[in-house]
Amino acid sequence: MRADTIRYEFASDNTAAICPEAWTALVEANAHYAPSYGEDEWTAAVCERIRQLFEVDCDIYFVFTGTGANALGLAQLCQPFDGVICHERAHIQTDEGGATEFYTQGAKLFLTKTNDGKIDLGETEKLIAQQVALHGHMMRAISIAQATELGTVYSPEEVEEIGVFARAQRMLLHMDGARFANAIAYLGCAPKTITWKAGVDLLSFGGTKNGVAAGELVIFFDKKSSRDFQYRVKQAGHLGSKMRFLAAPWLGLLNGDVWLRNARHANEAARELAQRLRNEAGMENVFPVESNAVFVQFDDECVRGLHARGWRFHKFVEPDIYRLMCSWSTTDEEISMLVGDLVAIK
Amino acid sequence: MRADTIRYEFASDNTAAICPEAWTALVEANAHYAPSYGEDEWTAAVCERIRQLFEVDCDIYFVFTGTGANALGLAQLCQPFDGVICHERAHIQTDEGGATEFYTQGAKLFLTKTNDGKIDLGETEKLIAQQVALHGHMMRAISIAQATELGTVYSPEEVEEIGVFARAQRMLLHMDGARFANAIAYLGCAPKTITWKAGVDLLSFGGTKNGVAAGELVIFFDKKSSRDFQYRVKQAGHLGSKMRFLAAPWLGLLNGDVWLRNARHANEAARELAQRLRNEAGMENVFPVESNAVFVQFDDECVRGLHARGWRFHKFVEPDIYRLMCSWSTTDEEISMLVGDLVAIK
Amino acid sequence: MRADTIRYEFASDNTAAICPEAWTALVEANAHYAPSYGEDEWTAAVCERIRQLFEVDCDIYFVFTGTGANALGLAQLCQPFDGVICHERAHIQTDEGGATEFYTQGAKLFLTKTNDGKIDLGETEKLIAQQVALHGHMMRAISIAQATELGTVYSPEEVEEIGVFARAQRMLLHMDGARFANAIAYLGCAPKTITWKAGVDLLSFGGTKNGVAAGELVIFFDKKSSRDFQYRVKQAGHLGSKMRFLAAPWLGLLNGDVWLRNARHANEAARELAQRLRNEAGMENVFPVESNAVFVQFDDECVRGLHARGWRFHKFVEPDIYRLMCSWSTTDEEISMLVGDLVAIK
Amino acid sequence: MRADTIRYEFASDNTAAICPEAWTALVEANAHYAPSYGEDEWTAAVCERIRQLFEVDCDIYFVFTGTGANALGLAQLCQPFDGVICHERAHIQTDEGGATEFYTQGAKLFLTKTNDGKIDLGETEKLIAQQVALHGHMMRAISIAQATELGTVYSPEEVEEIGVFARAQRMLLHMDGARFANAIAYLGCAPKTITWKAGVDLLSFGGTKNGVAAGELVIFFDKKSSRDFQYRVKQAGHLGSKMRFLAAPWLGLLNGDVWLRNARHANEAARELAQRLRNEAGMENVFPVESNAVFVQFDDECVRGLHARGWRFHKFVEPDIYRLMCSWSTTDEEISMLVGDLVAIK
Repeated sequence: MRADTIRYEFASDNTAAICPEAWTALVEANAHYAPSYGEDEWTAAVCERIRQLFEVDCDIYFVFTGTGANALGLAQLCQPFDGVICHERAHIQTDEGGATEFYTQGAKLFLTKTNDGKIDLGETEKLIAQQVALHGHMMRAISIAQATELGTVYSPEEVEEIGVFARAQRMLLHMDGARFANAIAYLGCAPKTITWKAGVDLLSFGGTKNGVAAGELVIFFDKKSSRDFQYRVKQAGHLGSKMRFLAAPWLGLLNGDVWLRNARHANEAARELAQRLRNEAGMENVFPVESNAVFVQFDDECVRGLHARGWRFHKFVEPDIYRLMCSWSTTDEEISMLVGDLVAIK
Repeated sequence: MRADTIRYEFASDNTAAICPEAWTALVEANAHYAPSYGEDEWTAAVCERIRQLFEVDCDIYFVFTGTGANALGLAQLCQPFDGVICHERAHIQTDEGGATEFYTQGAKLFLTKTNDGKIDLGETEKLIAQQVALHGHMMRAISIAQATELGTVYSPEEVEEIGVFARAQRMLLHMDGARFANAIAYLGCAPKTITWKAGVDLLSFGGTKNGVAAGELVIFFDKKSSRDFQYRVKQAGHLGSKMRFLAAPWLGLLNGDVWLRNARHANEAARELAQRLRNEAGMENVFPVESNAVFVQFDDECVRGLHARGWRFHKFVEPDIYRLMCSWSTTDEEISMLVGDLVAIK
Repeated sequence: MRADTIRYEFASDNTAAICPEAWTALVEANAHYAPSYGEDEWTAAVCERIRQLFEVDCDIYFVFTGTGANALGLAQLCQPFDGVICHERAHIQTDEGGATEFYTQGAKLFLTKTNDGKIDLGETEKLIAQQVALHGHMMRAISIAQATELGTVYSPEEVEEIGVFARAQRMLLHMDGARFANAIAYLGCAPKTITWKAGVDLLSFGGTKNGVAAGELVIFFDKKSSRDFQYRVKQAGHLGSKMRFLAAPWLGLLNGDVWLRNARHANEAARELAQRLRNEAGMENVFPVESNAVFVQFDDECVRGLHARGWRFHKFVEPDIYRLMCSWSTTDEEISMLVGDLVAIK
Repeated sequence: MRADTIRYEFASDNTAAICPEAWTALVEANAHYAPSYGEDEWTAAVCERIRQLFEVDCDIYFVFTGTGANALGLAQLCQPFDGVICHERAHIQTDEGGATEFYTQGAKLFLTKTNDGKIDLGETEKLIAQQVALHGHMMRAISIAQATELGTVYSPEEVEEIGVFARAQRMLLHMDGARFANAIAYLGCAPKTITWKAGVDLLSFGGTKNGVAAGELVIFFDKKSSRDFQYRVKQAGHLGSKMRFLAAPWLGLLNGDVWLRNARHANEAARELAQRLRNEAGMENVFPVESNAVFVQFDDECVRGLHARGWRFHKFVEPDIYRLMCSWSTTDEEISMLVGDLVAIK
């Protein structure tokens, strides 16, 4: 028993440290003076690098958190009386404290329910049809997570189908890419393939789970729709004065595709963990392991045993489905330790 | 002419880098895994240290920016139909993009006007008296900046007088302490003397201008009034997941009174700059130099000359009063260079 | 066929005119000058009459619509990060354009699902348990409709059970009483029995569907919780300047229990309509007819036939359940005409 | 002394009753059933009549109050981070409880100060120039009152000059027409001359002070900018279900130019009152009497004497300027009584 050490390795991908490349960039940025509020060279370089990466002229903004990115982005698209369709397990629905409703001044989330975390267009269509004019909501946006909260990844075709549907309904498409890097690492496609080319108008591109300390990107592919967005960010208190310290680590991620390597590493660790759970502990993965999350059923004995050994992790679906997350820093040793403990408990 | 280098030394105190002690703490925090959303040891240690420093049991929250700190704090105190009295040059009035109005869902700022940046209680009384019941606003809070935007510092007696006034009016007192450290450094008093003992209910305690990369504290001295505040912070997207990277640098500031040394340094640099501007360039300080800001009148020739030499700085009061800010990192050499350039231009 | 006349008799209870007693009071109020913004004698008299009727000292406010009453009342109780539990068919969820989310600045509705329109405490408990601290919502209020959107009525015991539950959870209880009169008419109890004595903190008491032109009451049984509410009403543009014209018709309803007679009439008309639909047209009521709504299944032929004869009415539950509403003004002749047309169509 | 009667005749133009023509229309509308939420014939007729009156195809919406009209209209034009320029005595600034800030989710009012209640374009230009990009506000709209709060009326040329200015600044022009009828009555011009032809984008057209019980029009001359506005009205609880009772009285005003006759009567009464105050009581008008308001200086003795005789009226400008309002129902006898009392007091 190792009750003396609490282990956060698999509790989330935000328990990991800053990755080395982001750190190095931070060190370099911490010399001398720099202009504030995004006028610095690192911020400009990140924006330029993002335009190259996505192969399109787009507008890029920094905010401090994924919640801020999603909610501010959707507030840019939506009026207070608008509706946003998402999955019932979407982060914006369950884990952001109502940020979207707050920033939009009241827009409502409408939920589709599926077992794989992806929205269902049939249900989406019904939700739209149900709105009674004036008394219900204007349906303005669809928000999908890529990768999803259940660790699954939309194929380019799936995104495109949703994009086409959204256009046909005169709706806009938002992608919560807190784990966008993991999705790209899984799909092996160009970022454009599952974003603007597939009909995505707005992307929250997450860096925190990929290796920086904080700082997410809000990317508008339709430059008209980003009008005055920086004012919205400022008013929300999300415009950093010493912006270089958000931007430089991002530059560390974007140089030489570190972001993709980090994501690949996390995905591979998850696959490895899933495989060993299956082979060594006889535990099936509940959802397909496509990104960096592994979901398993634990009975009470398991949970107690793991807790006693110091492991921390979150229940995700009632009554007994738990989530184990891998990150850029997950090691084989950590996986071995967890699996070993599980085998010992059973 | 040095047009090849742009100089941000005196443009603001947020153009400076992370101070060494904050950096060291950051390095130490970047090892291994840590729990997220403020459950980490650094966050707990900062809160404990703040309680010691202020000699009182209080509630402490991290947000990313000063704008976030002020606006979220005031949103905790105010209803949408409430009024907040502040100085016409208060940061919440002129430089936060309407964040207070946004977060409070519409509370209104009422302005008093003085030459030294401090609110006037006579005007405050008039503003309260002018409110017509139901049609006007409920006057809920007074917000003062310590140090003020003009670099002046309220004496403990002045704060206390405002505190007594606020209580008598059943109003609450907020202190925007973006440069709280500079005020304490100037006054040489205990933090409690100009906060809770003087009637301050809520303090925004700034770290960014004192040496960290980002991260300000919202401190409620009346613990009842902070009810559920963390939910407000979360909903605003201001709850950092990798919170340790906000907290650890703050710990660097708070250990061994680094925060106070940094502030003293900045204040002394400002006094030095002010004195040399007077003695060597014959330029009078427009406002008393009590913290780290120096205000001077520049004619057009001056402005053009300084710009040509690479210096950046902001006009603060129309038509010709400019602000020069010092920070923890200002050096004698930088001061000499600026004053030298000014003498050369004249 | 009577395609020349469009018949709104059963489309809603808001298609009816102003009832005679309300009208008489309006006539009397329209003489000479009166003070504005609720300082008039009619407003005072309504408040006094309500306190008598509910046998308690309570705070009463006028707003123009039921949507305004519900949303402003809930905004008084809830913070932006709070949750409100209601039925999935609650008017605040489906028919108020997101007013509650708007006025609360983002509070979220959580839904329980039952066949009779009443909330289920088991589901309510689960919804509360599901909230993850900080990331989810503070559950602040339960909102029930009395009568419900499906025409059913909570018994005093049912309300009390919810009231006890709410208190145990430190939550508040709101009652949407757009058809409160119909519920009292059905139950035959004192208003206090299903409100403050049963744990209701806040009541929206509807007049529009009971016979006035516009004007609903927001009643706070806990006078502390109504602090500054009138400011909220004013800021929303819901404070009428010529308030007497809202208040006087209400006085017409409240004098001599006109409100109860109107509601009894509407309820009886609904029972009569339901019985005749069953007996003459062989149509079963889908939900128990306890107030003034009758729900029936219509096939396409029925719907087309009724439309062709000029009748207007709303589909309420997919795919084929329609709602027929009675009001204070429904006559036997109107019922006969509708039933006759239905029999002819079948 | 007549302390037994309280006299509201001159306290405001909202102390008057419903005018006969509006009343007659109300009587006619109160027969039988009618569709709800604005689908009725009266609402359609009002919209049609307004389009004729303004000689343009425009979008027209009903809300219950002037506060609702101004705030919802401006919320349609403005983002939360936008600025609106108005006069320091504008109703939206001083008398609407912060409704504009609330509905816009935080937009800020910027004030120009003149002695005649009209905005000053020089000051307006300065206010725009003062905004620091990102840290200040986007200046989106100018709001003028016609007639102004001080009873003065902008000439067509003055409105046009502001319209041209607004266009040049890419700003929009809102007109608070709570007393639009009085302005037209004074100017004797076509409604279009001081609205869309002069660059007004949005008009709040007031009916309450002109003779109806409640109900103001929000008129968008640029039909593109009214997109989904009805949803905004609904979400605010300003969409009346029994809309015919708002619309029919308005039809009473609009038929045969009753609205204009009412306004002319009120204006003439004000001129008569002003003249008699000057001639009989030796009291000068403080502002030009161009609409239905008369402003005079009263000393304490006057105020006490009038109060003792039952008269009610409001102080408007500190320390001693009072406002006397006339309405469609002011009679010569009422004027004589007031002037007589004043002469007796002096």
